[in-house]
Amino acid sequence: MLVSGQPYRTIWMPDDATVRIIDQRRLPWSFTLLDLRSVAEVAHAIRDMAVRGAGLIGATAGYGMALAAREAQTPEALEKLARELIETRPTAVNLSWAVNRQLAAIQAAGFENRVEVALSEAGRIADEDAAMCAAIGQHGLGIIREIAARKPGQVVNILTHCNAGWLAFVDHGSATAPIYAAHSAGIPVHVWVDETRPRNQGARLTAWELGQQGVPHTIIADNTGGHLMQHGLVDMVITGADRVTRSGDVANKIGTYLKALAAKDNDVPFYVALPSSTFDDTLSDGVKEIPIEQRGGDEVTHLEGVAADGSVQSVRIVPEGSRAVNYGFDVTPARLITGLITEAGISSEHRL
Amino acid sequence: MLVSGQPYRTIWMPDDATVRIIDQRRLPWSFTLLDLRSVAEVAHAIRDMAVRGAGLIGATAGYGMALAAREAQTPEALEKLARELIETRPTAVNLSWAVNRQLAAIQAAGFENRVEVALSEAGRIADEDAAMCAAIGQHGLGIIREIAARKPGQVVNILTHCNAGWLAFVDHGSATAPIYAAHSAGIPVHVWVDETRPRNQGARLTAWELGQQGVPHTIIADNTGGHLMQHGLVDMVITGADRVTRSGDVANKIGTYLKALAAKDNDVPFYVALPSSTFDDTLSDGVKEIPIEQRGGDEVTHLEGVAADGSVQSVRIVPEGSRAVNYGFDVTPARLITGLITEAGISSEHRL
Repeated sequence: MLVSGQPYRTIWMPDDATVRIIDQRRLPWSFTLLDLRSVAEVAHAIRDMAVRGAGLIGATAGYGMALAAREAQTPEALEKLARELIETRPTAVNLSWAVNRQLAAIQAAGFENRVEVALSEAGRIADEDAAMCAAIGQHGLGIIREIAARKPGQVVNILTHCNAGWLAFVDHGSATAPIYAAHSAGIPVHVWVDETRPRNQGARLTAWELGQQGVPHTIIADNTGGHLMQHGLVDMVITGADRVTRSGDVANKIGTYLKALAAKDNDVPFYVALPSSTFDDTLSDGVKEIPIEQRGGDEVTHLEGVAADGSVQSVRIVPEGSRAVNYGFDVTPARLITGLITEAGISSEHRL
Repeated sequence: MLVSGQPYRTIWMPDDATVRIIDQRRLPWSFTLLDLRSVAEVAHAIRDMAVRGAGLIGATAGYGMALAAREAQTPEALEKLARELIETRPTAVNLSWAVNRQLAAIQAAGFENRVEVALSEAGRIADEDAAMCAAIGQHGLGIIREIAARKPGQVVNILTHCNAGWLAFVDHGSATAPIYAAHSAGIPVHVWVDETRPRNQGARLTAWELGQQGVPHTIIADNTGGHLMQHGLVDMVITGADRVTRSGDVANKIGTYLKALAAKDNDVPFYVALPSSTFDDTLSDGVKEIPIEQRGGDEVTHLEGVAADGSVQSVRIVPEGSRAVNYGFDVTPARLITGLITEAGISSEHRL
């Protein structure tokens, strides 16, 4: 997608020995590219969240293995580097999936061919991620087209939560892909961007993405969506997903459930966009079975922004001595979800 | 209530010519008292939100009129000062109510007795506000007692949104009054404090109040309450109200509606605590009829806190060029509300 008018992916290799990423820790305050030239540097970038989002983490691991293939002189050394990558974020399913896919490809082609094999496999993993998101975009575009047809000449208002944008994948994004597709098809869209406390991925990343792409958008406090829906100012909601059970319950960024309740109460269609790899068929009841990560309370008590002098500062926004808790995700029961948009199509059941 | 172990009200007169307030603009970063010695200073304090909250604004106007009675040498001059006070925040109903009550009292007693009459009337307005909140506390205490009785030896978890605490009134608060009453009665309570974006009155004011009073509490992002309710971690919700229609629809801080939806979805009792002066019998359908104030987008895009060097700084938390909108309130339909707690008692209808 576009940054300052130039097309970008979130990750690519400018040469065979370099992985280039957008340093997402510094967005939206500055757009900085970061070159990673060793597995250690890739591992650090994943661990420190210079890259984040299921799709992008998978792609980064794939590219990391391309560097690993150059570094490792023995299969044992390659295995060790693979483990180093997997251990950066143990709960990221796409990470171990991409690493294991690379190991299998190298094993199939023979260790002596590891460099070329890992290089082309890394590219394939990234291309597949981008293609999957593009397909989600085309399926979702159909829904937006229908809404637009019902209100000719008027803007279609879409609310989204957190960042399931191209920054979380290689390109296009999941929740944003239908929005970008509609915008590029000339359908007038406007996006309500939940700021998404406590990490503010909406205000920081989604707003930045949409702005760079020229998509009209407005940032709102997470408290606002219900009011907008009561007053007919939201035509549809699209969010991403971190994990989806076989019954269609969706774990996603904390607060998604509240927006789904408001959508139901106001007959606003609520869609979840996701690559089908996000399904976890081992689980049925999402609320009971999906473990919810608790993160540091400092993400609630402190917030980063740009001060009057232009410097990036972290400020404490609560009284000294007050504690905070920080649940990363919540679960939206399937009964509140209008449909799931995957690369294979749209379904109100999770099985397509 | 307590500040550093000493009992305080939010406003009082240390002598006949001085109105003393807690400067709420500086909370929780610093506890600063401010002396107001003229109607102009009182008007500025109201307009600049050094004092805020319906009850406290009314009391401040009452005390402001005590200063006005000293300043004015003619009935016309008094009327002029009265108008000056009313115009500080035109939508604050309690403000004009208190000013007009003072004008009526002075008229009844004769202009020559204005100074003593206004002084004692100001004290009465403040005392009545405090007594009303204390009564709300006692009625709400009964509800908390019942919940505590159903889970002996366990903590009662109460979620609140925004600040309907003693800082918004003269003492006790509305939503907080039952909590303080329960805490002081020895019932173990714990409060989930919604930070309440965009102005963060929960994180800044409610957390500070509760901390000063020694009430266990935890600050959460506004996105979190639904998840907590799904997991049985909330026994009841209590919020305040800005306006209540005759059908029992409640206008309150933006985001209240989302918590009410989650409470309903999880069978968590949802109470609204309010002085009965908050009812507006001219309105029936809250969502359609209550006008919702739109405030500056800068309250969403910028946030104040304490930087690493201890200075209080405002930081921009969104990309340059992204716009934000800021709706101050939303309306929670009566069907989602378990009961209203007023000074007269508890009712699931608004008429007691």
